[in-house]
Amino acid sequence: MPSSLRPFFEATGVAVIGASANPRKLSHGILKNLIEYGYKGGIYPVNPGSEDILGQKCYPDVAAVPNPVDLAVIILPAPATPEALEACGKRGIKAVVIISGGFKETGSGGQELEAQCLKIAADHQMRLIGPNCVGLVNLHNGLNTTFINGLPDVGGIGFLSQSGAVCGGVGDLVQGKKVGFSHFLSLGNEADVTETDIIEYLGDDPNTNVIAAYVEQIRDGRRFLEVAREVSRKKPIVLLKAGRTSAGARAVSSHTGSLAGSYSAYQAAFKQAGVIEVNTVAELFDVSMCLDFQPLPTGKRAVILTNAGGPAALTSDSLSAHGIILEDLEAETREVLRQHLNPAAQVGNPVDMLGGAEPADYAMAVKQLISDKNVDIVIPILVPQSLVNPAGVAQAIVDASQGSTRPVLTCIMGDISVNEARLVLQGNRMPMFVH
Amino acid sequence: MPSSLRPFFEATGVAVIGASANPRKLSHGILKNLIEYGYKGGIYPVNPGSEDILGQKCYPDVAAVPNPVDLAVIILPAPATPEALEACGKRGIKAVVIISGGFKETGSGGQELEAQCLKIAADHQMRLIGPNCVGLVNLHNGLNTTFINGLPDVGGIGFLSQSGAVCGGVGDLVQGKKVGFSHFLSLGNEADVTETDIIEYLGDDPNTNVIAAYVEQIRDGRRFLEVAREVSRKKPIVLLKAGRTSAGARAVSSHTGSLAGSYSAYQAAFKQAGVIEVNTVAELFDVSMCLDFQPLPTGKRAVILTNAGGPAALTSDSLSAHGIILEDLEAETREVLRQHLNPAAQVGNPVDMLGGAEPADYAMAVKQLISDKNVDIVIPILVPQSLVNPAGVAQAIVDASQGSTRPVLTCIMGDISVNEARLVLQGNRMPMFVH
Repeated sequence: MPSSLRPFFEATGVAVIGASANPRKLSHGILKNLIEYGYKGGIYPVNPGSEDILGQKCYPDVAAVPNPVDLAVIILPAPATPEALEACGKRGIKAVVIISGGFKETGSGGQELEAQCLKIAADHQMRLIGPNCVGLVNLHNGLNTTFINGLPDVGGIGFLSQSGAVCGGVGDLVQGKKVGFSHFLSLGNEADVTETDIIEYLGDDPNTNVIAAYVEQIRDGRRFLEVAREVSRKKPIVLLKAGRTSAGARAVSSHTGSLAGSYSAYQAAFKQAGVIEVNTVAELFDVSMCLDFQPLPTGKRAVILTNAGGPAALTSDSLSAHGIILEDLEAETREVLRQHLNPAAQVGNPVDMLGGAEPADYAMAVKQLISDKNVDIVIPILVPQSLVNPAGVAQAIVDASQGSTRPVLTCIMGDISVNEARLVLQGNRMPMFVH
Repeated sequence: MPSSLRPFFEATGVAVIGASANPRKLSHGILKNLIEYGYKGGIYPVNPGSEDILGQKCYPDVAAVPNPVDLAVIILPAPATPEALEACGKRGIKAVVIISGGFKETGSGGQELEAQCLKIAADHQMRLIGPNCVGLVNLHNGLNTTFINGLPDVGGIGFLSQSGAVCGGVGDLVQGKKVGFSHFLSLGNEADVTETDIIEYLGDDPNTNVIAAYVEQIRDGRRFLEVAREVSRKKPIVLLKAGRTSAGARAVSSHTGSLAGSYSAYQAAFKQAGVIEVNTVAELFDVSMCLDFQPLPTGKRAVILTNAGGPAALTSDSLSAHGIILEDLEAETREVLRQHLNPAAQVGNPVDMLGGAEPADYAMAVKQLISDKNVDIVIPILVPQSLVNPAGVAQAIVDASQGSTRPVLTCIMGDISVNEARLVLQGNRMPMFVH
């Protein structure tokens, strides 16, 4: 049986109910995003006051749309939402995203409206995402019902967020860096569709290799455990939990009106379900990108390949703190490195090629190291030197790593000036870290 | 008595011994940097093979320079260095930076050469920085003897590094972000001048507000304790120690040939001396910048001001993990916020102004919060929304914080698209964090 969530991500026609011709309105932004990101299905603005918005014929109500519509996006004042939802139900639409706020999060009046929407949805066997969310994006078909400016690159990370703001902020953070996403969505109040439903859906989605989640609360712990345990056997689930401390939990509760639960209970559940927990937004995507781009290591022996001692020492400290070992290399590897590198280079582990190391040195060394039997993980480090081009080193690492069954995780120090190197690496499915 | 290190940073004339006309040579880069960064003293390339380099008259040896020279930078093959150093001594030069490698770090032959240099320096009462370093920069007078491309902005952080690569990498990392530096140097083998000497010097330097150090080892623990204890009473010392784990210590030892010592002994010493230890390069400058730009908090009660719940929850978690408290605001503050903000806003702590918050809302709220008696630290958070300009919010926060005796630490989510906001904030001595 196909998932009831499928129309949300694979819709053949989308109605935007409340689409506005005013470019200052979020509903205008949604229509614009639907048009601009390559979505090939039908796009139907619904607004009794307009004939045409952004070149799309506009309909007075959803019943008037002549073509198939299987997804509706509602962005109307909260009190007008139930009526629009009812019209969707009558039209036979099975998936509705309610972007609008003004529901449960605002108190008892809103709570009643939300209950009313749920009742209508149940009567018509509709699924709801939201209300009070920024919408969703399927990057593989360009279906974008958000009002977010710009999008991350297309790839294998399916990201779901219980905070619309975190969703938007993440978009800003990863844009233009070749951190590839398959899906990108916020769930708002989760009146119907929950984080667990999306994890289950992405678990079966062929474009998603890794599931990344920002979570403030789990609605149904037992079901989450079941689903996450199942899904994490097939693909990694990386999760950032907000509200871990009592201050954080109070902050969550004040903005969603719901309790965040005890963190130790969450931790136990995550562990049981095979979920990988992280501590920051940056870590959420660093870890997810690694898991998407590179094979899993088969052991915990790493080798550091560097052009500078200091950063290798810092990396050694960090690996050691995480239980990763710097094992001695095979004698043969050391011999080959000794023959080819600067005579003053260190061919232990870390391998320090010294500041003059060129792309050809990186290529030769990476090739040797990925076939050393004492190595499970290869970590090339580059500190930019005035005469070495970071993008050239990045390309050499990419070429030398072709077909490696061991993960190669590159670390280049710097920021704006190493962006080209990042695009070379991450564009070739090799994660780059900056320090 | 003026410090014997003063000529390193306040030289009236600099000789570059081994300056090359070949733009691929590091010694050419040094001369170029000396010329290009606004240094007003005399610049004297020394090279018997050239008449003129980069428009500067070139001298066959240092004795031939007719004008005052109180700093020499030597960049010659190691075996030629003692002779050049002897010539500097005879010329009466009291400060020499030896950039060249090929000394102690390469084994016993190099060790002998290094000892020879030290002996010459002692005979002539010269101070040495290096060998095997990238040189030094005083950003307040443009004296730049490094070959690093580009420089950070001018400001109050004095940075010293025992790794030349970390020095270069940091330059790349902070460039163009208005993280201000007073000094910027690497010490190489520390044959003579050590990390402790520089900390002592920067402790008395009027342009330095905070000392940031990347350290692999302390040469003389007792003296470090004495000096650091004294200096940290006047200005903060923020320190990143590499070689904390045994793997890290081995990595340090393999590239410097010296033992890193037991980390727990270091930790105890740092604590006794009032040194603030950090864990990553990014943290080194985040913390240093905060201490440079903002007043110290007089207590541990923070308030979060946000336009989004999720990031406020993450920040609450992080504050709580560091012992910072989110105290209730004064009744009067809550009343004023309630009157001026969106009626659906939360006026507890975190104060959540919701996604529509504009620069004027931030201005009003920051003004209220910096005068609330229950608040020691103000943390404005912005998640970019499609209709709000981050730089506008940044300017509003800057204006509203004028004259605040409480630290205001802003957090704006995103990356490239929030760079303008960062320049507004950091250009006005307000640190910005990204997530």
